[in-house]
Amino acid sequence: MFLVNGERRHCVDVSDRGFQYGDGLFETVEVLKGQPLFWGRHLKRLVEGCKRLLIPPPDLALLEMDARQLCTGVDRAVLKLIVTRGSGGRGYRQPDPVAPTRVLGLHPFPHYPDQYQSEGVVARFCHQRLAINPALAGIKHMNRLEQILARAEWNDDAVQEGLMLDCDGHVVEGTMSNLFFVKNGVLHTPELSRCGIAGIVREIVIDLAFRNNIVVLEQQFDGSSALTADEIFVTNSVIGIWPIRQLERQCFDAGRITRSFQQWYAEARITETALWLEA
Amino acid sequence: MFLVNGERRHCVDVSDRGFQYGDGLFETVEVLKGQPLFWGRHLKRLVEGCKRLLIPPPDLALLEMDARQLCTGVDRAVLKLIVTRGSGGRGYRQPDPVAPTRVLGLHPFPHYPDQYQSEGVVARFCHQRLAINPALAGIKHMNRLEQILARAEWNDDAVQEGLMLDCDGHVVEGTMSNLFFVKNGVLHTPELSRCGIAGIVREIVIDLAFRNNIVVLEQQFDGSSALTADEIFVTNSVIGIWPIRQLERQCFDAGRITRSFQQWYAEARITETALWLEA
Repeated sequence: MFLVNGERRHCVDVSDRGFQYGDGLFETVEVLKGQPLFWGRHLKRLVEGCKRLLIPPPDLALLEMDARQLCTGVDRAVLKLIVTRGSGGRGYRQPDPVAPTRVLGLHPFPHYPDQYQSEGVVARFCHQRLAINPALAGIKHMNRLEQILARAEWNDDAVQEGLMLDCDGHVVEGTMSNLFFVKNGVLHTPELSRCGIAGIVREIVIDLAFRNNIVVLEQQFDGSSALTADEIFVTNSVIGIWPIRQLERQCFDAGRITRSFQQWYAEARITETALWLEA
Repeated sequence: MFLVNGERRHCVDVSDRGFQYGDGLFETVEVLKGQPLFWGRHLKRLVEGCKRLLIPPPDLALLEMDARQLCTGVDRAVLKLIVTRGSGGRGYRQPDPVAPTRVLGLHPFPHYPDQYQSEGVVARFCHQRLAINPALAGIKHMNRLEQILARAEWNDDAVQEGLMLDCDGHVVEGTMSNLFFVKNGVLHTPELSRCGIAGIVREIVIDLAFRNNIVVLEQQFDGSSALTADEIFVTNSVIGIWPIRQLERQCFDAGRITRSFQQWYAEARITETALWLEA
């Protein structure tokens, strides 16, 4: 089910720049007991992304009204928000004025086996690299051909995620997730100033680390660094936190620190639900 | 006016991957006296792009039928072709099977002053860089945020084009055009194996150079190389060949070689028209 600018529709204008050029942003939100989780964080990132792409931010009250309309009474689902630069003529020059398009869609929550959480998943390295572009780094924009080509590298359901390197060989993230690994009790995660998407669960995990006095090292790492980690896990708003139990031919235990973050993240989700119900 | 999969419609499915991820390709074609010019070359590039993005190429007979329906009786216009990976679920993984979407749209031919052709245009260097990604280089795909951010750097109608450098400082192309410059009688154009779009008029200009015994140097050039050229021009299917008369503070004459290419390109367009009418 979709709402396009607040109306129940299943289509967008051909001249929408989202369709013509991938000229927009999106958010993928977990819906639990009628509530889009970490809604405030998602909206904050969306607005920041709009500013960086010079798209006028959407009316947040309208977005929330749309979200409530779609999510009320829904036990579990995925809510996808899209904001584009709206319709315009042919050519890259921005329309003047810009009238952004907002699209909200409710999708079934994917059924992942429980052991992805408990025992972990299998990951590989992708051949497809992430290009370096500081102007777009961190933003969840709609230019996603790199991720699509990376995800097309395997069809084997035994592999759940692919890790991507940038053009200089630094490991950045998964095709659909952010990457963390633990070495000697220190939490490592690639910095995202040159490419990659700054995920909401990534942000929460870093906050949780600070709160629990776990040192976080956010910098560039070679692809091989991940292989010598004690623990390794990936995050996004739909999967939560998945330990990686095997990366290429290297096996890992879902260790104590990964388990702690899973526990803390589960608690954060419950706190969030309480907040929205009170509002 | 648009044809979506052969039907007169003005909208596409929200779940089309062209809209979700910019997951597709396009062609921009000049229409003259009812004919899409250099049609064979455009289709060839489109099919090659589909192969590289792992999208099943569209039925060319259907594309041509659509094009004839839109272009017949039209004196001058711009025909835009889009092929996307079609509709799919949430997530980067390709739908199985893929049912590509084809969209053809007819747009008014932009009115450019005659002196852009005769005297030349003014260009600047953009701050926005082109990211290096060999897997996407050359393809006219729909991930175009870099060009959009570059084109948003100026609003001054006295400037007609912006030249873009890659992340290593090599000049690659204009925001909407390919770049050529002449030094000591040799035609220079940036090679496009790491980023940039391999334009149809660019290909024709290189063919015309071979045919007229003009040496073509296709390699990486620093941004400053263009500033010390004897002649400099940009190309695309809508503008044809525009001399650059000023780049930043440096002025140029539309010299003998640029004029020759304009003349040869004009003749090639006429030959093309004759070919289609005979078909």
